[in-house]
Parts: sequence; C-alpha cells; structure tokens
Amino acid sequence: MTVATHRIRLDTRGRGQIIDLTPQLRDALAKSGLKSGVCVVHVPGSTGAITAMEFEPGLVEDLTKALERLAPADAHYAHNTHDDNGYAHIRASLLGPSVSIPVVDGALSLGTWQQIVFLDFDTRPRQREIIVQFVGE
Amino acid sequence: MTVATHRIRLDTRGRGQIIDLTPQLRDALAKSGLKSGVCVVHVPGSTGAITAMEFEPGLVEDLTKALERLAPADAHYAHNTHDDNGYAHIRASLLGPSVSIPVVDGALSLGTWQQIVFLDFDTRPRQREIIVQFVGE
Amino acid sequence: MTVATHRIRLDTRGRGQIIDLTPQLRDALAKSGLKSGVCVVHVPGSTGAITAMEFEPGLVEDLTKALERLAPADAHYAHNTHDDNGYAHIRASLLGPSVSIPVVDGALSLGTWQQIVFLDFDTRPRQREIIVQFVGE
Repeated sequence: MTVATHRIRLDTRGRGQIIDLTPQLRDALAKSGLKSGVCVVHVPGSTGAITAMEFEPGLVEDLTKALERLAPADAHYAHNTHDDNGYAHIRASLLGPSVSIPVVDGALSLGTWQQIVFLDFDTRPRQREIIVQFVGE
Repeated sequence: MTVATHRIRLDTRGRGQIIDLTPQLRDALAKSGLKSGVCVVHVPGSTGAITAMEFEPGLVEDLTKALERLAPADAHYAHNTHDDNGYAHIRASLLGPSVSIPVVDGALSLGTWQQIVFLDFDTRPRQREIIVQFVGE
Repeated sequence: MTVATHRIRLDTRGRGQIIDLTPQLRDALAKSGLKSGVCVVHVPGSTGAITAMEFEPGLVEDLTKALERLAPADAHYAHNTHDDNGYAHIRASLLGPSVSIPVVDGALSLGTWQQIVFLDFDTRPRQREIIVQFVGE
C-alpha cells in the first residue's frame, strides 16, 4: 500500500485569484510512486476552495463573474462586523474545500482541457499550503 | 492497511440547520488508529449536504442567506406536487453529499478556523446518520 | 488491499442532461469485490459534473432551473469568443467533477432516495467515460 502526502506552497494575492495546480499535482504523483488509487486535494482554511475547470483566461473571467453573482463582494455580511471577508467565506463554502481524482495507470484521470485549481477568495495576500494526499498502491 | 467506519447519529430540526461535526470527527479519527490517509464524510439522504466553513454565528447567518438566494424556500418546485421540500433537495445537490479530508500524522488537515459541517435542509425534524470512512494506514 | 477501476461509457446529448449512474455503480462495486472503503466517481472533462440527488422527474426539472439561474445559457461568456459552451463550463466548475461515497459491508452508503448522477452541460452530443475508483479492502 502507498500513502504519500505532498504540500504545495503558494504565495497568493487573494480576491478570487485562481491558480492551476495541475502541473504540481502531476509532479507530486510521479514522486509518490502511486500507480492506482485516489488523489485528494484539500485547502486548509475557510476562505479558499478547490474545483476543476478549463484554465483559460476567458473562463477565469467567467467563473469570477459567476462567483460575484453568488456572493457579491460588497453585499452585507454578518461576519464583517469583525472582518471584511464575508463573501470569501461564503464562496469557499459553496464550492467546497477539496476534490478527489482517481489515479489510473500512474496518471490523474483528468480530461485534456480539465485542470484542478485553487481559488483564494481572501481579501489579503497569504501564504497557503495545499495538502495533496495519495492513497492506493 | 486501516479501513474504519464511524457513524455520527444526530437528531436534527432541519430547515437549514448547520451542525459542526469536527469534534466528533476528531474523536472518531483517534479511535480508528489511522495515521495517514483520507477521511470521507457523507450524508446518506438527498436533503442534506456536507461542506467546510468557519463555524461562527455571523457566517452561519451569511451562508443561510446565500443558500436562500440559490434556492428560495417559497419558490415554485415541481417536486412539491408530492412533497414540500423541493428547495431542500436543490440546495443539497448544489452543495454535494460528501467531503474528503486528508489525514496526516494522525490529524485531520483542517485549518484553524475551518470546520466540517452538516447542513440539514429538510422541512421536518429527522434522525440522521452521517457516515465517516477512514482509509489509509 | 483492493484498488479497482471501472469505466462507465455513455452516449450523451448534453445541454444539462442528467443521468442516474447508481445502478452501474452498484454493479461495478459487486464486481470489484470491495467490502469496505470508498468509491470515487469522476468525470474527465470540464463541461460535466457529478453530484447526488433524488432522481425523479420533478427534481430533474427543479435542478435544471436552479442551474439555469446560476449560469444562464444565453448570458455573455468571455469563453464564447472561441466556443458556445461558456455556461456549461461554469455550471461544471460550481458543482464539481467528482463525488466520494463510503462503501460499508459491500454496499454504497447511499440513502434510499439518493442517487449519484452525471450532468452533461455541453452543447453537443458526446461520448463520455465516467471513471469509478474503488479503494479499500
């Protein structure tokens, strides 16, 4: 059995920044030696999210607009009595903190135009650490 | 290899109630003996969801409002010809029924202010059983 | 340890088509021999999503309408300068590409009225392959 943990360290600027994690996930998978199993990608922190998308500039713009409709940055948030990032928390909870991807024949089972991305919704630059867990054999 | 199943039993009142599962997940992890792997938290039932959030009263209020915008309780639902909980189903499907969290060095890889929560959207009190699966070593 | 991969091949018509995968997941689980662990269901491709729902005609209609509100088909999308399926990508990223379900005593831990579904948002018929990964023992 193989269980391998990888950490992706990122300096982020937040405010909805979207970062493609796929190249680093592929490198980490190669180092893990996993041939068959699952890869769980998780952000510790309640103002970030993980999802999948075709990572191209038009869709980065479109997804950003859709998230602004879901939880507008300048709406009223009860959380904002002690912070200014209520919308960041709400967007993160709606998208979710993790994604699981099968690993088959030593590769992530992603589509050609499908990337795994981290979205940092917080309102200030941060140092983030994404946790990548490989489980299988 | 370790595979361990834990069940969290809850008496819920529904209508969007949000319950922090994190203390029970930590207890269950300690009992499982898992050191490294993943923890999958799943609600059997199509009117509940699992996600992550900072579990504080302001954000509970903010997330509740965001979900009401996504699927208003008093909108028309085709499902309501034989039930009254159409909005509960839609909110559950949009959020999703499960979350996976890495387990590293015997601990859930959660952020300091990140909790795993169960949302019960149904329109009546229920007895719920959340399934927690630990897989790894 | 058991790691088993199953592929579900589908001819889809897209435009929000929702397909119940649960019978095929149950068959695949029986063939895998897995007794305890997790089942990860993933769509390779950035215009499809996986979630859970009660698969009945009223809720199929209700979920379709909710997704149309989230990302209207005829809104402006920057992605549409080189394609016509911007809304398909946005809906897919908001719902997410995969779901994980515990396997307990040789069965998926689903509720009686809870099905796992694939949503194909693309704007043309496609041949899809859903990847199902079983990990456990």
